[in-house]
Amino acid sequence: MKVQCLKGFRDYLPEEMLQKNRMVRAVQQVFECHGYPPLMTPALEYSEILLGKYGVEGEMLLYRFRDNGDRDVALRYDLTVPLARVLAEHGEITMPFRRYQIAPVWRAEKPARGRFREFMQCDVDLVGADTAAADAEMLVIGSAVMKELGISGYRIRINHRGILAALCRLAGLTSAGEVEFLRLLDKLDKIGADAFRDQVGQISGIDEAGVESVLKIVMANPGDSRQILAGLEDALGSDPEAVSSIERMSEVLDLVEASGVSEQCHIDPSIARGLSYYTGLVYETFLDSLPGFGSVMSGGRYDGLVGLLAGKDLPAIGISLGLDRLFSAMKELNLLENRSQPADVLVVQFSQALAPASFAAAARLRTAGIATVVYPRDAKLKKQFQFAQKAEIPFVVVIGEDEQSRGTLQLREMDKGSQQEISIDEAIRIIGVELPEGNNQ
Amino acid sequence: MKVQCLKGFRDYLPEEMLQKNRMVRAVQQVFECHGYPPLMTPALEYSEILLGKYGVEGEMLLYRFRDNGDRDVALRYDLTVPLARVLAEHGEITMPFRRYQIAPVWRAEKPARGRFREFMQCDVDLVGADTAAADAEMLVIGSAVMKELGISGYRIRINHRGILAALCRLAGLTSAGEVEFLRLLDKLDKIGADAFRDQVGQISGIDEAGVESVLKIVMANPGDSRQILAGLEDALGSDPEAVSSIERMSEVLDLVEASGVSEQCHIDPSIARGLSYYTGLVYETFLDSLPGFGSVMSGGRYDGLVGLLAGKDLPAIGISLGLDRLFSAMKELNLLENRSQPADVLVVQFSQALAPASFAAAARLRTAGIATVVYPRDAKLKKQFQFAQKAEIPFVVVIGEDEQSRGTLQLREMDKGSQQEISIDEAIRIIGVELPEGNNQ
Repeated sequence: MKVQCLKGFRDYLPEEMLQKNRMVRAVQQVFECHGYPPLMTPALEYSEILLGKYGVEGEMLLYRFRDNGDRDVALRYDLTVPLARVLAEHGEITMPFRRYQIAPVWRAEKPARGRFREFMQCDVDLVGADTAAADAEMLVIGSAVMKELGISGYRIRINHRGILAALCRLAGLTSAGEVEFLRLLDKLDKIGADAFRDQVGQISGIDEAGVESVLKIVMANPGDSRQILAGLEDALGSDPEAVSSIERMSEVLDLVEASGVSEQCHIDPSIARGLSYYTGLVYETFLDSLPGFGSVMSGGRYDGLVGLLAGKDLPAIGISLGLDRLFSAMKELNLLENRSQPADVLVVQFSQALAPASFAAAARLRTAGIATVVYPRDAKLKKQFQFAQKAEIPFVVVIGEDEQSRGTLQLREMDKGSQQEISIDEAIRIIGVELPEGNNQ
Repeated sequence: MKVQCLKGFRDYLPEEMLQKNRMVRAVQQVFECHGYPPLMTPALEYSEILLGKYGVEGEMLLYRFRDNGDRDVALRYDLTVPLARVLAEHGEITMPFRRYQIAPVWRAEKPARGRFREFMQCDVDLVGADTAAADAEMLVIGSAVMKELGISGYRIRINHRGILAALCRLAGLTSAGEVEFLRLLDKLDKIGADAFRDQVGQISGIDEAGVESVLKIVMANPGDSRQILAGLEDALGSDPEAVSSIERMSEVLDLVEASGVSEQCHIDPSIARGLSYYTGLVYETFLDSLPGFGSVMSGGRYDGLVGLLAGKDLPAIGISLGLDRLFSAMKELNLLENRSQPADVLVVQFSQALAPASFAAAARLRTAGIATVVYPRDAKLKKQFQFAQKAEIPFVVVIGEDEQSRGTLQLREMDKGSQQEISIDEAIRIIGVELPEGNNQ
């Protein structure tokens, strides 16, 4: 038997998991500060709930099987469709409804560097309002998350499905060729204009002159969102859907500016989100220093999805942070704090007879909010000190027979190499001063 | 199509999920304060890793299937076997090794009140030390978790597999009948002595006089752990395995007393954990006010399990909190704080033209650490106020044209019904005073 982690999956060992948990707490705090409470749905859903929502390619990636009761079930592929199912099932939920969900999702994708078959998504969604205010709120939250995580160099690139539909019409396409056209448009950055011309040229019904107009629009790079909107208005002003999309994006920009986050938000008509359920604003987030890394936070408006399950339409918009992808990126950018374990103090076990004294001291330290471990055996002192050093525990407490009889302890500061015999109250005071951030973070 | 949550599973809607998250954070804090860092393993493992670890009954409850690459996989059934797999796979991990994991596990059990097929386990494990100190540490952490959760009336009932083996021998049994005998012993509380006599009487090789001796030992209830140990010594003093188990439990009691948590820890020779991998100390936790509810936190020593996967033995002990079960119990006991959403302030959207002013005010409030939502539409003021009332948001901010021109806002305290026109700085001050706990916990 090969004892190994399942192919395409990964463990998070303590050092990385401490860092990841710190990210999760930061994201939770931002979400709750924007008034979003958490929701949790099961890992498994009836397959029919998930089928028909992600497009053909997405559906092939479902972990789908028959459970012990012969039910056709699948692991959740995202957090959006389960939300739609909850909304359909709980008619009593009051609108507007906000919620966040931070949970793993599963996709049987081809594993690649930094891409795994299980990954943590952090989603916020606002249901019940098809307004610029709802749209802008997503961008405000997205910016706040990045700020809280300590990431400054990034761009949220924003588009509207109405613009994409108008670009398709400009290229002579009806609904038949749209999916392929948008898929290639999404890759334009990577493949370049020439390869784009080549490949869209093979879509039946494509209009070559139209393609050039599209390229002119999406590759114009005035660098200013208002100017891009003006350019879109010039080029697509006769298309009513494009006009209303431009108007919406303009209102969104007003609100983003009022919130002080316009510097990171950029209109970009080449952005085309893959999932088939988007209907309005869409956005993706790219890191300046890792341009080839792909989007770390994205989402959009999906006004039809809840209706598919609920029988009545409910407008909705969301933004999803790919926590594991962002974790990889932050690691590559050296933005993660290193700390392999949470203990502030190791209490040595001097002898088995003195173990109760060590346990009593540890209990006192923990009550004072100091994260404390007791060495679980009366090993040689040298070995116990080596453990503290290797684990980077900053303080070691020793209680031998003399200290016990005097009601004191030896406190050693590992980095200074200094040691002093003091009372436990004095030790608590010193450790508290040296660890200003306190334990547990 | 029926739009519903999968049978045997449940959603956590925001109110309950806020409460559950608060529990998770409390548990995390206790674990980290005891020097335990987090570890995360995937939801799916190769089936062969999990098979042969949980006994026949456990194995039938696995969610096992073939993935898209025809691999035989299963959802994790607990967090212990995945830990053993990680230890076997990562030879570089230094001993003693501590970790916690808070994650869902899946068991295809018959659903019952408060029992679901997906539930959150909170596990701490200490690997690399077969000592009383390691054993006692579990009880110290378990007590600290209960205290942090605000639960005072509970008992951790402690036994040792060596005692159970000695009781089997006393009843005339060799390994053949042990499992059935211990299963019935575990149910003694529920079924009573007469039914116990009846049912164990059918095990082949059972010694009736021996069964009476066993009953005398496990039903003696002197109420004091030291007295129980003395009684065990009297009854089983000729059995070497029992003697060393009694010695270990006595040392554990010393350390539990030194840690100030002996009041909740009770030796109880009738406790027999179900999972087949336990080898030493075992424990279960029962709530005084819900005696029929079953154990909410349990575990034990499993010195052989890692060896099954790693090829070399590593002593290990752990304790596992069933968070969803405990959540149900705390709900029943009214120990959960009610708060359906996290927002402190609703900023009204007076008109679409004034939406930017609302967004700017919300950004200021959030920067001051106040959880804030903006109503996502310029609905009638009455409707927006009703929303705040229903969602129990304590403050509402209104910025109309007059307020905007004067650089002020209207702050309404919902419970007092009072409203005043003030600056945003003054509003931040007032909200801060009235919400002493701040937002987000």
